[in-house]
Amino acid sequence: MNYAIGVDLGGTNLKAGIVDIDGKVHQRLSVKTDYHADSQTISDQIFRLIDTLISMAHLAKSDISGIGLGSPGHIDKRGETILYSPNLPQWRNVPIKNMITKRFVVPCILENDANAAAWGENWAGAGKGTSSMVMMTIGTGIGGGIITENRLWRGANNVAGEIGHMIIQASGRKCKCGNHGCIEAYASATAMVLRFKEALESGTQSSLKNCDEITAKMINDAAFQGDKASLDIIKETGQYIGIALLNIMHILNPETIVLAGGMTGSGELLMAPIREITKQGTFEEPYKDTKIVFSELGNDAGIIGAAGCLLKELETSV
Amino acid sequence: MNYAIGVDLGGTNLKAGIVDIDGKVHQRLSVKTDYHADSQTISDQIFRLIDTLISMAHLAKSDISGIGLGSPGHIDKRGETILYSPNLPQWRNVPIKNMITKRFVVPCILENDANAAAWGENWAGAGKGTSSMVMMTIGTGIGGGIITENRLWRGANNVAGEIGHMIIQASGRKCKCGNHGCIEAYASATAMVLRFKEALESGTQSSLKNCDEITAKMINDAAFQGDKASLDIIKETGQYIGIALLNIMHILNPETIVLAGGMTGSGELLMAPIREITKQGTFEEPYKDTKIVFSELGNDAGIIGAAGCLLKELETSV
Repeated sequence: MNYAIGVDLGGTNLKAGIVDIDGKVHQRLSVKTDYHADSQTISDQIFRLIDTLISMAHLAKSDISGIGLGSPGHIDKRGETILYSPNLPQWRNVPIKNMITKRFVVPCILENDANAAAWGENWAGAGKGTSSMVMMTIGTGIGGGIITENRLWRGANNVAGEIGHMIIQASGRKCKCGNHGCIEAYASATAMVLRFKEALESGTQSSLKNCDEITAKMINDAAFQGDKASLDIIKETGQYIGIALLNIMHILNPETIVLAGGMTGSGELLMAPIREITKQGTFEEPYKDTKIVFSELGNDAGIIGAAGCLLKELETSV
Repeated sequence: MNYAIGVDLGGTNLKAGIVDIDGKVHQRLSVKTDYHADSQTISDQIFRLIDTLISMAHLAKSDISGIGLGSPGHIDKRGETILYSPNLPQWRNVPIKNMITKRFVVPCILENDANAAAWGENWAGAGKGTSSMVMMTIGTGIGGGIITENRLWRGANNVAGEIGHMIIQASGRKCKCGNHGCIEAYASATAMVLRFKEALESGTQSSLKNCDEITAKMINDAAFQGDKASLDIIKETGQYIGIALLNIMHILNPETIVLAGGMTGSGELLMAPIREITKQGTFEEPYKDTKIVFSELGNDAGIIGAAGCLLKELETSV
């Protein structure tokens, strides 16, 4: 019983790995998620991936403590059923926990994907050894997970950690959630590209000026090559993130904040303004102790975290 | 051992009460805090108040489980010493927990005043029976306390719950903490009065137009008499609070949010826009389950909560 299987279901990729009790991944597999399929087809895809992983790793069933599944979307209070998922429209009302338990006859835990990734970083990554942590994943959207007293804080209805929809500029940009001024509407990769295009339209010069399509990666690459408009927009993005983190610090005062997701590819270009804003803006000394760091597990966070949630659950329930 | 003493040290009043194990106050005393005095004088004032309370109540020392003290300011990580307090400038580096323990030879707990009040409402007031709760106290300033899994969340450095300094309008009004756009700079009593005066200066008509001094209470009274400018400013204040609560709901998803402090005297005038904003702005169904209510303990919350923190501590440490 030295291994757990972690599964990370995403809108694009379905990943799974064999994870040991120290949070190390020993085998990993990844396939494209059958995005448009119905929930039975997606479930079957998950089952097959786990089957393949077990046979690849030459493990006996007795070596495996159980299976952790990180899934997008809202999970019911009992942690058994996916109720709905904005990123996987057909993935609705699926009692996937019991389906996995029945199919593999091992314990299973179902966890929100952002929570699973946060737990992974806390267990075996950038937040290791800290008892309170907030993870902010900045990619196409912005998601999060909260750990207090060495446990995931899931909220009363299993929907805590939606830090991307924290409003930092109430009169500001419209967010796709319908509200105005969410940090996601300013600092996600999508939002940064939009703000960049607006800057170009209003006459800002840039080496990307005549490109047909602009992505966050292109802005990042141009910034590393010294393009001022790209440097400016990344700095501004960091400042917005800094404001959101100030709020997190003042509300939750976590020991560590871990930043993850594609946007962290900008490294110090993004981190420098974040540090500047949070140092300036904290009005009491103790807040300055909060460590703000990048994730260490990268794309493995979801797999490791899902497996870790299962191991934590088994440990707690003993 | 059926009673605990709760002490609530404020910048204006020092209050204490005998609290039973159901959170009921049996005796209470209040004196003006010797605001400008040194810390020894303030400590002596606390000691004398406790002495008087015990003799008034005809209690034997054996009837008293211990003493809980809620104090403004920042408390060290071990919960023993007041490091500093913006509201009581001389109240610095006071090892008050050990001073009380030594003087009265009973267990003592030292808790931040906002946390103590939140615990009081959770234990015996508007948040009773809920395992996760956020309290927002809206008076001269805005403070808060957070309860997750039936425990106060104090943060890594004992400074969690500063929800008054959540930034909701980054380009907005300057807050006295130095940042821009904190909810305190919009929705505290002080901020509402300031916004009201600005409205009058820019020509808004009101029955308070020619008053020399305007207070939040006057605005409230005028609103109840139908003054449109007063009604509007309270509504706007509720809308700002609603935005801050949306953030709390999206980040923490608590079961209950309790609103306290002088501003809640506006009752439904304040609550109606709060409900409207939070109903509109929550993008997932489960958030709609969050109960938003006014405090039930009023000015007793600090006393009851301080006593309750002591009782909780004794229960946990058994």
